[in-house]
Amino acid sequence: MSLYTKQKRFLFAVDCIIFGYDGQELKLLVIQRGIEPLKGKWSLVGGFVKEHESAEDAASRVLKDMTGLDGLYMEQLHAFTEVDRDTEERTISIAYFALIDVQKYKQQINENYHAAWYPINEYPALIFDHSKFVELAKEKLRYKAALHPLLFELLPPKFTMPQLQNLYQCVYNIDFDKGNFNRKILSTNLLVKLKDKDKLNSKKGAFYYKVNSKRYNADFNSFLNFVPTQYLKKKV
Amino acid sequence: MSLYTKQKRFLFAVDCIIFGYDGQELKLLVIQRGIEPLKGKWSLVGGFVKEHESAEDAASRVLKDMTGLDGLYMEQLHAFTEVDRDTEERTISIAYFALIDVQKYKQQINENYHAAWYPINEYPALIFDHSKFVELAKEKLRYKAALHPLLFELLPPKFTMPQLQNLYQCVYNIDFDKGNFNRKILSTNLLVKLKDKDKLNSKKGAFYYKVNSKRYNADFNSFLNFVPTQYLKKKV
Repeated sequence: MSLYTKQKRFLFAVDCIIFGYDGQELKLLVIQRGIEPLKGKWSLVGGFVKEHESAEDAASRVLKDMTGLDGLYMEQLHAFTEVDRDTEERTISIAYFALIDVQKYKQQINENYHAAWYPINEYPALIFDHSKFVELAKEKLRYKAALHPLLFELLPPKFTMPQLQNLYQCVYNIDFDKGNFNRKILSTNLLVKLKDKDKLNSKKGAFYYKVNSKRYNADFNSFLNFVPTQYLKKKV
Repeated sequence: MSLYTKQKRFLFAVDCIIFGYDGQELKLLVIQRGIEPLKGKWSLVGGFVKEHESAEDAASRVLKDMTGLDGLYMEQLHAFTEVDRDTEERTISIAYFALIDVQKYKQQINENYHAAWYPINEYPALIFDHSKFVELAKEKLRYKAALHPLLFELLPPKFTMPQLQNLYQCVYNIDFDKGNFNRKILSTNLLVKLKDKDKLNSKKGAFYYKVNSKRYNADFNSFLNFVPTQYLKKKV
């Protein structure tokens, strides 16, 4: 008997931590679980991996099915493998986190799910070890956003500096100094100032900006400075 | 029939990318595979995950069994889940990378494995998709070492600045300017200068240093500077 034959096989799932920003708050998308055990409890969006798909395929399928959107920012966060993490049967879960502009999602939502957005610091109790996934995803988001411009994935195509600053403040749960913040962000040359202003949120108005997508793609690692970025070829 | 019952189950393994530094070169530990298929071919050190262990447990077991050493620096790198990655049967592999001082390992090596150290840029063809694991681990090592002092895990308890610089040069495959390098490293206050010198490698000799382990543990994230480090609570 080969060593392969003797091994135990396990269930294998993906779960997605979907962060969204609605212009005011950073939020987490959760659903009411549709299957037993724990049917009706709050859960991350996820599903079992099928025979002919990789975990990435499965996560993309789950995200597309849930949001109606293709091409969302998504990355593998961590494999959660504790023996007793699923109360029904041992299941390996690979967690992915995704970023989404809530306005875009609103146009596409799949009504088949009982889904809800909760502020990332006030979400309800989740099944199994899902809150561990969320807390790790929050840490990873803070870590990566400190080094790379990925928070722009959460914004609409045009946005103001006060909106951007508010987003960073939501992520880090602190107030940034406006002058320093603007200087730091603008020094990356990742933004293009537009001609029109948002006049809804202040009398004086605030200019809209958009991301220079060519620079964004080329300089994704550009906040790094201990070693020149040319030696860091890929997002990790 | 519950949704669980209907699912396919899969084999589940861990593989370890073990990097070692021997004072001269950065190396990768590989073994000759002991089982079919591909018996005798070069492979990463790994094994199937058992029913009562997590992937972390399995990786620690594999590392301990291979090196005889406990408490090695180890972190989860990535879950590799491509459908056809194992030619025998679909197997999910969770890859871990570990860092080791080759001298320490030499005293403990498990002779049951046909193991060899290869320079990280000249290792032999590996089975399955293992070279993808290694390349991703190299990227991750470069990325993290640019921000955090983890390369000290590869060094003996005392080392000289030329040895440390050589290690960084191996990792990034470039020459660093000696003055800048020393200034940058010493400014972290992570090192303690010792009284004795290494006189083997130069006439003048080079002072030994050791890591200030209290600061090392407290300041693991201290190379970050875009956002104050107190907001980055955990290694990711």
